[in-house]
Amino acid sequence: MGFSNFMKDAIAMAHGAGGELMDKLIKNSVLKYLECKGSSYDVPLSALDDAGVVEDIVFTTDSYVVKPLFFPGGNIGSLSVSGTVNDLSVIGAQPIAISTAFIIEEGFSIQKLEEIVKSIAETAEQAGVAVLTGDTKVMEKGSIEDFVINTSGIGKRNPLLDRNIEEVRRYREFDSRWLLDSNLRDGDKIIVSGNIGEHGIALLSHREGYKFGTKIKSDAAPLNGLIEKVLETGGVVAAKDPTRGGLANTLNEFKEKSGVGIIVREKDIPIPEGVISACEMLGIDPLEIGNEGKIVLGVVKEKADEVLSEIKKHPLGKNASIIGEVDESFNEVILETTVGGKRILHKPMGDPIPRIC
Amino acid sequence: MGFSNFMKDAIAMAHGAGGELMDKLIKNSVLKYLECKGSSYDVPLSALDDAGVVEDIVFTTDSYVVKPLFFPGGNIGSLSVSGTVNDLSVIGAQPIAISTAFIIEEGFSIQKLEEIVKSIAETAEQAGVAVLTGDTKVMEKGSIEDFVINTSGIGKRNPLLDRNIEEVRRYREFDSRWLLDSNLRDGDKIIVSGNIGEHGIALLSHREGYKFGTKIKSDAAPLNGLIEKVLETGGVVAAKDPTRGGLANTLNEFKEKSGVGIIVREKDIPIPEGVISACEMLGIDPLEIGNEGKIVLGVVKEKADEVLSEIKKHPLGKNASIIGEVDESFNEVILETTVGGKRILHKPMGDPIPRIC
Repeated sequence: MGFSNFMKDAIAMAHGAGGELMDKLIKNSVLKYLECKGSSYDVPLSALDDAGVVEDIVFTTDSYVVKPLFFPGGNIGSLSVSGTVNDLSVIGAQPIAISTAFIIEEGFSIQKLEEIVKSIAETAEQAGVAVLTGDTKVMEKGSIEDFVINTSGIGKRNPLLDRNIEEVRRYREFDSRWLLDSNLRDGDKIIVSGNIGEHGIALLSHREGYKFGTKIKSDAAPLNGLIEKVLETGGVVAAKDPTRGGLANTLNEFKEKSGVGIIVREKDIPIPEGVISACEMLGIDPLEIGNEGKIVLGVVKEKADEVLSEIKKHPLGKNASIIGEVDESFNEVILETTVGGKRILHKPMGDPIPRIC
Repeated sequence: MGFSNFMKDAIAMAHGAGGELMDKLIKNSVLKYLECKGSSYDVPLSALDDAGVVEDIVFTTDSYVVKPLFFPGGNIGSLSVSGTVNDLSVIGAQPIAISTAFIIEEGFSIQKLEEIVKSIAETAEQAGVAVLTGDTKVMEKGSIEDFVINTSGIGKRNPLLDRNIEEVRRYREFDSRWLLDSNLRDGDKIIVSGNIGEHGIALLSHREGYKFGTKIKSDAAPLNGLIEKVLETGGVVAAKDPTRGGLANTLNEFKEKSGVGIIVREKDIPIPEGVISACEMLGIDPLEIGNEGKIVLGVVKEKADEVLSEIKKHPLGKNASIIGEVDESFNEVILETTVGGKRILHKPMGDPIPRIC
């Protein structure tokens, strides 16, 4: 077997990066074998949404292999709780409990473990969820790098969803009970809840010792409070947190699953100066960088301004912006650049910064 | 800082082995910070039972770092599904869905991944649960050994529990809604559902190339069907799967959490000849070896024979046996040896065979 064959049959870093290659792996090597049979699965695995739903219980899982474990703005503990709370919230759930499963390298500092656990406790408290169950495994020195964690989470259907959906139905047909990636329709507005690119750049600059990123902190935060505010206002049809693969990946997921086109305007996408300059220096696209404290919403156009102003009132939504809209006359994600040109915003092959979560 | 200090402050293999050292780590470095506040948690994290319960949703998590990934009787995929299904079932839940989160080493064979996924699918089908949500992460070559998986699971309260508890209450007071480690009382019989030690010995012999274990296969299997049969019969007060730390650990967990003494008779504990000879050769105690397809039950004495005969009818319970009883006149686990002596069966410090799950 030649080298190229070997590579084709082997896992690459990009297979875990949330983009095109990971999509293919999941579809060809996982979904092919796993199927939710029966009708009780409101949102099955094959939806590949942020969480699955069975009998109105919302369920999600994520492993965190972030490097380094501690970074400006958080650590693997706060990150994992935020990520799981957000995955539950963006589908329309109220998070009620999470699990924490540690895999620890032999020789790892117990003091560092405690710092991580403290951070888990603080973030869980902030989000109003309990750690209900857990697990601890140890691997021999050299078999695992430092520490990884899996957090899974369960939630129940947010009672505010009914009110939100009622509001959607004042303006258009809507037949979903959840905020799915597949719910977007012509005319819906796309809102992002704040600055893009901070988590990835904070991590990269800390990891590599780059000076440019010294003022940039990870945005990792639990967003369930913010999402509750938005559901109270109503009119939201879809929500997603732009983690691995960044905004470019999220918009392409929306596009694919809803079967629509999306146009976004570069000038309206909030990107901090520090992220822009870091990205220019490194030749990476800020739209492909993972975030851990942001949501992207699809909102019926009649409610978009109201939802935006509600988000902006929240401490985690100050820089929110309407960045574009759904257009069913085409089936691409189009970026209108600041200089007025248009280009297709493709799904990233992988994340330009590996192991950010 | 001297060497001994360094070791004291660092994670050791035994911290992940399910025994005394892991207990201390969890209590001092995890539970100290994590608390389920409020009254909606029927079984909180601090119960350290096989699963947690909130609003009658049962929730559990386990990471699997087993070495090697494929072994006689199963692989990491079938093992992880069985383990999670069993953790839900032994507390009294009907498993309804599981999650699978893969962490894969760069370069890992996609074909092996698919074999594992197929095995997950088969075992989930056998147990009647769906894989509802998942995650895939990749770490650089050398950062993680091959492949680890986390499976979490959710279940709902088994409707047969009410009937089971009614049966318990015909004979004694019982104020729990779940099959908890803390439910044992004077006179309850202890039943084990079959042969002890197979999983650990199968793994060890395959791993190290020992000849003695060639006929021993892992017992990994989902036990929810067997447990349903037992609940139909009724009279069960507690159940636990004797995984890391084996039967010795399970009995000591029962003892500690119920605040009772337990006496078991060596001659009644089913241990296959191959396990005994392997253990003698290696100088390890079969009672400390992890199992992945067995349950240990506490049953009111009036129902013990009936429950036993029901278990024996099930393909996974053929070698079941009543191995002892609860005695509140002392507070130890006592083993009556085959030659008639008595010794205290201590909680293992760790598992004699590392990374069996």
